[in-house]
Amino acid sequence: MTEKKKAVVLLSGGLDSTTCVAIAKAEGFEVYGLSFDYGQRHTIELDAAARVAETMGLAKHVIAKIDLRVFGGSALTADIDVPKGRDEDHMGDDIPVTYVPARNTIFLSFALAFAETQGANDIFIGVNALDFSGYPDCRPDYIAAYQKMANLATRSGVEGAKTESSLTIHTPLIDLTKADIVRTGLSLGVDYSITTSCYDPLPDGTSCGQCDACHLRLKGFREAGERDPVAYKNDLDR
Amino acid sequence: MTEKKKAVVLLSGGLDSTTCVAIAKAEGFEVYGLSFDYGQRHTIELDAAARVAETMGLAKHVIAKIDLRVFGGSALTADIDVPKGRDEDHMGDDIPVTYVPARNTIFLSFALAFAETQGANDIFIGVNALDFSGYPDCRPDYIAAYQKMANLATRSGVEGAKTESSLTIHTPLIDLTKADIVRTGLSLGVDYSITTSCYDPLPDGTSCGQCDACHLRLKGFREAGERDPVAYKNDLDR
Repeated sequence: MTEKKKAVVLLSGGLDSTTCVAIAKAEGFEVYGLSFDYGQRHTIELDAAARVAETMGLAKHVIAKIDLRVFGGSALTADIDVPKGRDEDHMGDDIPVTYVPARNTIFLSFALAFAETQGANDIFIGVNALDFSGYPDCRPDYIAAYQKMANLATRSGVEGAKTESSLTIHTPLIDLTKADIVRTGLSLGVDYSITTSCYDPLPDGTSCGQCDACHLRLKGFREAGERDPVAYKNDLDR
Repeated sequence: MTEKKKAVVLLSGGLDSTTCVAIAKAEGFEVYGLSFDYGQRHTIELDAAARVAETMGLAKHVIAKIDLRVFGGSALTADIDVPKGRDEDHMGDDIPVTYVPARNTIFLSFALAFAETQGANDIFIGVNALDFSGYPDCRPDYIAAYQKMANLATRSGVEGAKTESSLTIHTPLIDLTKADIVRTGLSLGVDYSITTSCYDPLPDGTSCGQCDACHLRLKGFREAGERDPVAYKNDLDR
């Protein structure tokens, strides 16, 4: 019996990253989940990440603590109101206020360190097409440039180093719509009731149903012809 | 009077990064220092970084706390003995045990976030030629790949974004010997007595004089025909 290949999966506990876990497992990887406690206003997503790690049988789940608040500059880490009630057509107009400076660059850098210490050559990140317009660090050319840099950064990039293998950054959701993602996850048996996507949940974890993340998620389930199993405020019409 | 250009300088409080601060200032930049509390065994270097920030009049000095110990894997963050008494010829044979996985990738990622929130388009990092053989993430092709990735990662990389300027990563020490660095710093008025380079200092900050970092530093001063002003254990012959 050969040892399973290891993959680090960036795990926020939301729809996309949880689907990434299912895809990595379906591709035969032993999954090492990496979540961040980065001073986000709600730790509800870390609870969701821990539920996903437990339920989906991850080999290891690490929560790395980083404090992006020392730099300021985003709704997810500072005291700026999360925008509500925008429809999808208006989300891509600007870089969202929920943008965290250099977030994916920082997250992938930690994933790189984790992968190196675990002997993993694969990293999964759940960026997807809907994010392109708003978040610069979700685009395919950014991911490709990151992978190139990463392969120069680590031991395996050094001539004569023992490790010959190179690092691959997987973005299995990059061309999928939210409906595609929901369908993919459900076909792989994902239980989306343990996930959370809301930017502004109630203290008990109930999703607001009004922020951009809730809108996209609900639309995804609707278009997939499925019902989102998480609880929403006002038990809104789905 | 025009506003000064801003630069983020990665500041460990050692010889190289302190010289970088002096070079950035000499090039007309207002300097934003960024240090890391990354679970290193000695916080003596953070004290040195704070002294440098104060003495050299930085616009701002931020210490970002990150915990690389969750991943394991290095003498600087774990309980592995720091190698002693190696001469320079043997330092490049292997990747040093003082290697921190993905360290510069993580440090530069935070620098990118800091630069973005401060409106800086320039980052200085004190990597230099002597580090090439041992540390993969000190090589010029790595830095070039990082810069390319960084320019795709941030708002300025987005078509139609307000910020037109692009990010430059400066490595002014990259081709210098330690003696060159000492000469450059002294010519710019750097007071090296406030810096520290030792991997394994005494509790009072006295350098051990025996680790790789001490060896390189002492050799640099010796070859520059100068005396290193920091205190060494046993007041060793310099």
